[in-house]
Amino acid sequence: MPPEALTPDRILEATEEVLRRYGPAKATVVDVARALGVSHGSVYRHFPSKAALREAVTERWLDRTSERLGEIASGDGPAALRLDAWLSGLFEAKRHKAGDDPELFATYMVLIGESSGVVERHVADLVGQLARIIENGHAQGAFAPPVPDAPTAARAVFDATNRFHDPAYAADWSTPGITTAFEAVCHLIQKGLAA
Amino acid sequence: MPPEALTPDRILEATEEVLRRYGPAKATVVDVARALGVSHGSVYRHFPSKAALREAVTERWLDRTSERLGEIASGDGPAALRLDAWLSGLFEAKRHKAGDDPELFATYMVLIGESSGVVERHVADLVGQLARIIENGHAQGAFAPPVPDAPTAARAVFDATNRFHDPAYAADWSTPGITTAFEAVCHLIQKGLAA
Repeated sequence: MPPEALTPDRILEATEEVLRRYGPAKATVVDVARALGVSHGSVYRHFPSKAALREAVTERWLDRTSERLGEIASGDGPAALRLDAWLSGLFEAKRHKAGDDPELFATYMVLIGESSGVVERHVADLVGQLARIIENGHAQGAFAPPVPDAPTAARAVFDATNRFHDPAYAADWSTPGITTAFEAVCHLIQKGLAA
Repeated sequence: MPPEALTPDRILEATEEVLRRYGPAKATVVDVARALGVSHGSVYRHFPSKAALREAVTERWLDRTSERLGEIASGDGPAALRLDAWLSGLFEAKRHKAGDDPELFATYMVLIGESSGVVERHVADLVGQLARIIENGHAQGAFAPPVPDAPTAARAVFDATNRFHDPAYAADWSTPGITTAFEAVCHLIQKGLAA
């Protein structure tokens, strides 16, 4: 049996594992190469620097959330229901990331602090998905014309739900009453967008 | 002329000045007493500990914002206009605190990290003011019945505007487009509350 091909995906998988084991301060490209049983030169062929590797693994972590939400955004059905599913989906995904594996979450918080470009792209991606739902809701006649336009209204929805997706508030996510607070904000948004 | 009486207010005034001069890590009660030309025992007669003094000066700093907003909350006039004035007033006050005197702002961020009780009271105070505006708007017939109740709806409005008052976002407050973003969130909230 030939050895498994060294793909970017396998490298990123191993990188996450190495980050989990050694922490963001100590993990090196050599550790990643060792975990894969290859030379560090082979890793560098796919990712030109340690920074590029860390950025790619962060992007992959963030994309795991946005890909699932993208399906809701581009799906069928009434926009109000999709908006609800999208906002709950984002909150749930963040909550799970923070609660199920707090060490990995803390690791990614460090990585995110290093690469603001990745976060900006991630936010732009999510806001774009919200804009699609809002435009779609308007086309369906369920939402009023977005004020002042769909991208700005989408960003407003994203901003208005900060407490439920920005890691700065992660400590709030396990407090009692957080679900009531989330639902109250969602209600405000839905009514704010409705035709 | 008798010496000016040593009031809690004068002590807090001096404490802020000492904090500004020495920074939160180095400022001591002895520095405050020296600035006032009194013994540190005299300061302790009003504030039993250094922690109590720091908490009081933080509370005073936060109260400067909430007092002015309180006047809007308990004022007359259409609730929607008062809500706009209140939200803009909060954003403006925070922006000024962060932008006009960044060092003092950073100092208070340290103090706030030390005394979560003070922040909780401050937030409860602000949310209470919002609840008053919402209840009032409902009584005027301008707002729909608050969902599920005025305190929860008020907290939702506070949460939805986090990006425009939580110091965690202070770096955003001087970026281009922040006013458009703020207005879009306010529009969403106003429509979300409207009858």
